[in-house]
Amino acid sequence: MTETLTYRHLFGPGPSNCYPEAIAALGHPVLGHLDPLFIEILDRACEGLRQVWGTGNARTLPLSGTGSAGMEAAFVNTVEKGDVAVIAVNGLFGERMCEIARRAGAEVVRVDHEWGRPIDPERVAAAHPSPKVIAAVHAETSTGVLSDIAALGQLKGDALLITDAVTSIGGLELLADDWGIDVGYAGTQKCLGVAPGLAPFTISDAAFERRVKDPQSWYLDIGLLGGYAGAASGSKRTYHHTAPVAMIASLEAALGRVLNEGLDAVQARHAAAGLALQNGLQEMGLELFAAEDSRLPSLTTVRVPHGVDSAAVRSYLLENFSLEIGAGAGEFASTVWRIGMMGPNANPASVVLVLGALKEAIAKA
Amino acid sequence: MTETLTYRHLFGPGPSNCYPEAIAALGHPVLGHLDPLFIEILDRACEGLRQVWGTGNARTLPLSGTGSAGMEAAFVNTVEKGDVAVIAVNGLFGERMCEIARRAGAEVVRVDHEWGRPIDPERVAAAHPSPKVIAAVHAETSTGVLSDIAALGQLKGDALLITDAVTSIGGLELLADDWGIDVGYAGTQKCLGVAPGLAPFTISDAAFERRVKDPQSWYLDIGLLGGYAGAASGSKRTYHHTAPVAMIASLEAALGRVLNEGLDAVQARHAAAGLALQNGLQEMGLELFAAEDSRLPSLTTVRVPHGVDSAAVRSYLLENFSLEIGAGAGEFASTVWRIGMMGPNANPASVVLVLGALKEAIAKA
Repeated sequence: MTETLTYRHLFGPGPSNCYPEAIAALGHPVLGHLDPLFIEILDRACEGLRQVWGTGNARTLPLSGTGSAGMEAAFVNTVEKGDVAVIAVNGLFGERMCEIARRAGAEVVRVDHEWGRPIDPERVAAAHPSPKVIAAVHAETSTGVLSDIAALGQLKGDALLITDAVTSIGGLELLADDWGIDVGYAGTQKCLGVAPGLAPFTISDAAFERRVKDPQSWYLDIGLLGGYAGAASGSKRTYHHTAPVAMIASLEAALGRVLNEGLDAVQARHAAAGLALQNGLQEMGLELFAAEDSRLPSLTTVRVPHGVDSAAVRSYLLENFSLEIGAGAGEFASTVWRIGMMGPNANPASVVLVLGALKEAIAKA
Repeated sequence: MTETLTYRHLFGPGPSNCYPEAIAALGHPVLGHLDPLFIEILDRACEGLRQVWGTGNARTLPLSGTGSAGMEAAFVNTVEKGDVAVIAVNGLFGERMCEIARRAGAEVVRVDHEWGRPIDPERVAAAHPSPKVIAAVHAETSTGVLSDIAALGQLKGDALLITDAVTSIGGLELLADDWGIDVGYAGTQKCLGVAPGLAPFTISDAAFERRVKDPQSWYLDIGLLGGYAGAASGSKRTYHHTAPVAMIASLEAALGRVLNEGLDAVQARHAAAGLALQNGLQEMGLELFAAEDSRLPSLTTVRVPHGVDSAAVRSYLLENFSLEIGAGAGEFASTVWRIGMMGPNANPASVVLVLGALKEAIAKA
């Protein structure tokens, strides 16, 4: 029914614009979910995901839902009634973890931090003597803050470490195995440059052994899902549910693009774009929100100047430049902007465009 | 990474080939999930879904998962520990309902039927004096059987009627309101002619009032989801999770195509293709599996002739004609084939193609 196609410059907290390869793959003929040709695509997607996760985990696969489904999968497969979950909260997605863990029956021990600051691994690790899981967000999409997951991994003890990598995967260094991540989930619509709809997921063999054997969710039961993704070593592929074949083909194409460019180069591109944006914003006299040593390159948070109408600026950008930036999250909805430089958008032209457009919008909105 | 694109004729139980409009929409520029332009697309998709569901339910929306996520949403939002769920089982998806309801805490009363036969509404309704929900599959994808949901709706009493319409929506008559369906879920990859990845979902106001208020799933909590889809009357749109924007745009385009052709015409096209296929198969001397008065036009089940290797025939079709048909489900895996005529594939050319190819494959495989 849509007749006019509008191109949006997507510089919000996600979705980002997609890699051209990802869009092109969506236009390919659809394959059956059990077709040998599709299984090859799925296998390549899983292998590509292992590389961006920095893991050798056999059970690394795209779940058939968005990043929040990945979050739910992480908890329903690891905690059940009475298990203790220590959760580091320094933004909206840490909050969401608490809610999802509670619904999975866990006794939630939340460790609150100021929004805009990274988590304190020592405080998190000391919050409970014997949790079943410890969970933290690597890159908080709500605040633009990067936390040190490797440090938390060293302190986790016998707990399983759950990590949200939604806004880091495919754009920032992410070394699940080296850092001690036992269960990780992410999204496709940020640095991976794919439309939203899949949740890249990984779980170590050791965590799989300690998983909840009869999780409350059938749809997200990793014990069943691994069979279809062919991840359970030596086992035959079994039907679980009809895989979202078009989205998986799109993910596979984007991963091919990212790995062909090279993870180091992609990360350097994100780092450079983020830094240039942050420098430019400060040169305009704006104040960044996230703590100085913990700023995400992929997502920059900046305070709305005093006297400026946040929503009016965002509307001005959308109407005049077809350019989207994000409002702040939670209590910062009208006092912070969130500006993403992700996937194909992490480049010098994006920086020039955003800075120039924002400058005009602040002056005229 | 894929270089050669292979077109498959998808005549299995789903995914089907997609409507061209649905594929084209996937190639459109991605929009933000809160962009006013995307909200218009979402609203049109929800309105189109109301039409194919035959409902005026405000809470009619595409869930961000496949049909099985829809099934899980139906149960986690209606039953919790101790609630009785009467479930009609006449195939694989009735079985799956039992498993998902059990994990939601329900006391499951299953009413078994022979596979290949429709459900018996009177027996189902009499199975328990006061269930919270009664659930049945409208069109069993595992057996190709259509059941009379309207009759069950008349007998449901105070129970909420949950209906699986995965293989009927968009191709067969479906009148949720008239039939007394309180909660319905479906998939996009069958008669709607969209890639798999979304679950069209509907829940009546009355069922919403009687829902589980704190469901075990956050991702599928209809109390939260309705706010984003703008379905809760008078309420402001609220962020829940990042919507799978590309898939929703594809669904909206397909619904536009279907409604433009007209529901009656689309249903007649499916009916004609199914009947012609079934007649043709019988003229070839093959025996249909589903009971005569209950055969789905969208999905035909046929017995593998004695002495013929089911898998060899399917491989022959794939290799020689790039044509997929499905194996049987469950214990009929090697003794039944499943042949779909769905969405754009429900047409006379498909019938000629499938019959001709199958005849050769049986002779030569």
